[in-house]
Amino acid sequence: MMTTRINGATRLYGIMGNPIAQVRSPETFTQAYTTAGINAVMLPIQILPEHFELCVKGLMALGNLDGLIVTVPYKARMVAFANRLGDTARCIGALNALRREADGSWTGDMFDGAGFIVGAQRKGYELAKRRVALFGAGGAGSAIACGLLAAGVESIAIIDPNAEHAESLTQALRRTFPACDVRPAAGVPAGSNMIVNASTVGMRPGDGLPGDIGTVTADTLIGDVINTDAKTPMIELALRHGCPYVAGKDMHAGQGEALLAFFAAATAAPSQQSPAHS
Amino acid sequence: MMTTRINGATRLYGIMGNPIAQVRSPETFTQAYTTAGINAVMLPIQILPEHFELCVKGLMALGNLDGLIVTVPYKARMVAFANRLGDTARCIGALNALRREADGSWTGDMFDGAGFIVGAQRKGYELAKRRVALFGAGGAGSAIACGLLAAGVESIAIIDPNAEHAESLTQALRRTFPACDVRPAAGVPAGSNMIVNASTVGMRPGDGLPGDIGTVTADTLIGDVINTDAKTPMIELALRHGCPYVAGKDMHAGQGEALLAFFAAATAAPSQQSPAHS
Repeated sequence: MMTTRINGATRLYGIMGNPIAQVRSPETFTQAYTTAGINAVMLPIQILPEHFELCVKGLMALGNLDGLIVTVPYKARMVAFANRLGDTARCIGALNALRREADGSWTGDMFDGAGFIVGAQRKGYELAKRRVALFGAGGAGSAIACGLLAAGVESIAIIDPNAEHAESLTQALRRTFPACDVRPAAGVPAGSNMIVNASTVGMRPGDGLPGDIGTVTADTLIGDVINTDAKTPMIELALRHGCPYVAGKDMHAGQGEALLAFFAAATAAPSQQSPAHS
Repeated sequence: MMTTRINGATRLYGIMGNPIAQVRSPETFTQAYTTAGINAVMLPIQILPEHFELCVKGLMALGNLDGLIVTVPYKARMVAFANRLGDTARCIGALNALRREADGSWTGDMFDGAGFIVGAQRKGYELAKRRVALFGAGGAGSAIACGLLAAGVESIAIIDPNAEHAESLTQALRRTFPACDVRPAAGVPAGSNMIVNASTVGMRPGDGLPGDIGTVTADTLIGDVINTDAKTPMIELALRHGCPYVAGKDMHAGQGEALLAFFAAATAAPSQQSPAHS
């Protein structure tokens, strides 16, 4: 592991959310920049809901902050602060990354789904023609659904205890991918050969599966967004049946790569003069 | 040197100014925190004048930013953002540090002078009864004058090309230290046995002395605020005459200690819960 040094010329990136102490990006991204010889750090930035707008405007006006990762609970709320949006962010109305371009404007997009797709591809799993049952129509579920449709899955059944959420995600996806079979569902449809948990069930000790999983075979591709070193109930299920799986850690590794590439693609790095004094 | 690691629980401190790439505090303070086993970093924060208020309000509202060092050109402007001021900041109307207290309020004070005093004491120099000629009535000069008077110097003659600045600093110092002999001056008075450069002269290559220095003996205590590894004209003068001296580097080392102690004395460190997920 190389040594991170912060000096006056260090460029700043931040991950904003609340709470913030549990996020892993500061460690993984800072290490990635250090290893690449880039003088930049990823900071944890805790923003309390009552100060949201004040903090966001202040951060985006700083002269040496070049990008933001956005986590819970601000992914939808941050859309209004981007000057332009990528396709996924526009489709689902949420983003998890913003970068500053050379002209000072901000571009936002959503990589929660890209991480899942990259994670699956890394493990050599075919996504095209899959019949997907997706638990969770929130931010992560929306982004993954978007990514899966772009990757060519055959159908997605969206299962969420909040039927309105499932319905409104269905509508948004149909607008962007009119040729695909997307529908809300009360449970895993017969014939599904991919099951993804994008709900928060599995996050707490003692959590079970996100719902009735139906029949699982060794061909069923299992996915779980919960990012933990422990085996979640979904991953335990996959191991028990010998299924291929994409765990939260696979997804987050893939997302890290996608985010680093997104930040690196800013139209130009701002430069700053360095006078001799301090 | 120990390895700095940034994670979600890292507490943030920042040095704000414009430009910012030249400041040294990010490196020295971050290293001091790392060595002490404190999970905190000191960041460079560039604030452009046109975004000053927006950035300051946003930074001070962040949930995990515990302190700010303030440098050029914001030392006077930041006074309005402190909920309470220390004696030196109140005397001269400028501050260079703010810390957040347990109740969320901010305490500000000025340590530019304290650094000079600590730097002189570290080298074993006596300040009491000195007859001082001070070049520069700006922020650094004001803070050093305040510190010198508190340390018991006999008199201070304030030399500044802007006579109004010299006069208004004189008035401010007389209000706080009515028993002391403080006056504006056109040059170094005869009988001075301490000469301090608190102007920016000496910062640029090719700069000379800040003015006519008069007669220097081996007893004359020389001070210079310019923080550089090179020998400034003032320090060259001291070396040539065998004078005791406090260089910008001595002053900045002393100021670092004073600032770390100021931040550590906040009424309580905010704490944050750490849920299991990321």
